[in-house]
Parts: sequence; structure tokens; C-alpha cells
Amino acid sequence: MIKSIPLSQATRLLNHGPTTIITASHAGKRNIMAAAWACALDFKPPKVTVVIDSKTYTRELMEAEGTFAINLPCVKQIEMVKKVGNSSGRDFPDTDKFAEYGIETFAAQEISAPLVKDCVAWLECRIIPEPHNQQTYDLFIAEVVAAHADERVFSDGRWHFEGHDDLRTIHHIAGGVFFATGQEC
Amino acid sequence: MIKSIPLSQATRLLNHGPTTIITASHAGKRNIMAAAWACALDFKPPKVTVVIDSKTYTRELMEAEGTFAINLPCVKQIEMVKKVGNSSGRDFPDTDKFAEYGIETFAAQEISAPLVKDCVAWLECRIIPEPHNQQTYDLFIAEVVAAHADERVFSDGRWHFEGHDDLRTIHHIAGGVFFATGQEC
Repeated sequence: MIKSIPLSQATRLLNHGPTTIITASHAGKRNIMAAAWACALDFKPPKVTVVIDSKTYTRELMEAEGTFAINLPCVKQIEMVKKVGNSSGRDFPDTDKFAEYGIETFAAQEISAPLVKDCVAWLECRIIPEPHNQQTYDLFIAEVVAAHADERVFSDGRWHFEGHDDLRTIHHIAGGVFFATGQEC
Repeated sequence: MIKSIPLSQATRLLNHGPTTIITASHAGKRNIMAAAWACALDFKPPKVTVVIDSKTYTRELMEAEGTFAINLPCVKQIEMVKKVGNSSGRDFPDTDKFAEYGIETFAAQEISAPLVKDCVAWLECRIIPEPHNQQTYDLFIAEVVAAHADERVFSDGRWHFEGHDDLRTIHHIAGGVFFATGQEC
């Protein structure tokens, strides 16, 4: 059901501007946060930008490890997205957000970050170090080194959500309110 | 019908990842292109990123002028978005894409770029020069210096498209196919 996506098609997962979940791990620690400000940057090799606040625990892990994952959550995961977006991994020193919120994961192919189960696509990313951007703008540039998607809603390089309303990607408006990705037009 | 948006709410126009139209003008020349890779970067002052290929005429104008506009087109403008996305301003040396495609505009408040009529929101942007990003990644960082929206679909800091299906913003998938922004969830 989960298929690898050719790297030449990886940016198509992000073209439509969905809300994302960022995961990272380093030295046995892992974390997860919501991020609306992720965007495609280049096709070949595929690159992305993502804005990650300097105060977040996820950023500490991703900067230490040099890699992170972009997970694309869907309509049925909105409550989980709100939970991981409104809490800090530092709140749970003895466990972590995955354990606290019962979030299941599976192993990535090229990086250490856990991939979130029941999301509809995943981009495994390696940071291209750009200290000025990171320090001045909280802006990270990364190369996509592997990509995967749920073939029920993404195949042959295209999203197709018809008949799978609960698997539609989501778009943050503000204040924890989201739109579902709508009709093709 | 078009209302100014407080700068503190400007990033909310882009949070949900809509496809954009970029306009720019310099020394009596103007141009317009489609851009799916625009993203919010910061709240205060509001900043955005946008990826603009080095071969485009719009980039030549925006780099010369130091400013550009992000226009948010809606469902009823999809044919126009495809036209401006699939042609170059350099194809029309005696006129321009606005004249060729009958695209009406109105004046911006703080910058020279024309704003596209019948779009549903507009962000007037001033480039923060970052030569390394521009040359290496085609990536521009800009501060939003004014913002406006059609109050039928954006007011009190929120998008609300119910009852206005033809005014829904759009999201590029690939190959000139788009999704409309969908239901609140």
C-alpha cells in the first residue's frame, strides 16, 4: 500500500501546500511537531525548505542529526496534528510525544527519523547546511533522499483523493483550523 | 469589497499553501507569472519565501525593482493562471502578457507591481537581498509591506469560502492540474 516515489516526482507531494509533520531523532531521542511552512525548492535533485522555530526540541534533534522527515498527515489525523503542534517534546522528559499520544511509526529508508503511520506521504530529508538562513530566518534547506506515498491517494506522480475523503491532505488556516484538500478543478 | 489586512495577519493568507501569481514592474515594463512555491517565513515583520527561476522575465524585473506582488488567484481564474504559467513575457516584446490575455490590474499601495483584478488576496513584497540564496537556489526572501483581501472570503484574520466556490483559492498538483481549497475540518 505504501510505495516508493521516484525522486524526480518528490516535489509533487508538496506542490499543493499541505500542512506537514516533522519528525527527527538523534542519539536515542526522537520528536515530532507540526509545520505549515514547508515548501518545494527544486526538482533535481529534489529540495525543500522548511521553517523550524529555534526554540523547538525537534530542531535540536534535526540539527544534531543532519536529517529529518516530512510526513503528510490527512483528515483523519487532525486531532493528532493539533496535539503534536500544541506541545513540546521537552514536556515529556521520561517518555516522548509518540508514547504520550500513542503515535505509531515505522522505519525510514535513508535516515534515522521515525515515519508516522497512517500519514499519506513521507519525504526523507538531509539538511544542506546554510547557517545564515538557519540562524537568521529559522529556514532550513534540505535535499529529499527518499520519498514514499500511500498509493490509494498518490500514484503515477499524481494525487487523487476521490473516494478517500478521510485520506485528503490538510491545509492550516490559523489557530488550529484546517481545510481539506478539495476537488480537482 | 477589497480590505487592507493588518500586517500581523498577512501570513495567514499563505498558511494553507495556495498557488500564487507573481507580478513585477520596472522602468515601464511589467510581467506576470504563476508560482506554486511561495511560503510564509515569519510573522513579525511578516516575511515570505518564493522560488523564481533565473530564466524568467519576472525575475529580471523584480530584481531590478526590488519589489514584487504575490496575488492569490481563485477557481474562476484557472485558465488565466495556466496562460501566464505557460508563456514568457519575452514572447511579447511589443505588448505584454496583461494586454495579450486581457488581464486587468489595479495599483498597489506601496510598490510598483500591478495587482491582478479578481484575485482574492494580494501581498505587496520588498525583497530582502540574499544574493547567495537567489543565485544558488532561485530563492527569494521578502518582507510583506502591505496586504489586502476580498472580504467575501477573508475577514477577521480567517479564510471562509462557504457559499463562494468560484472564489476558492487553488493548489497546484502537477502539469496544470489544480485542487480547490476544500472544506473546513
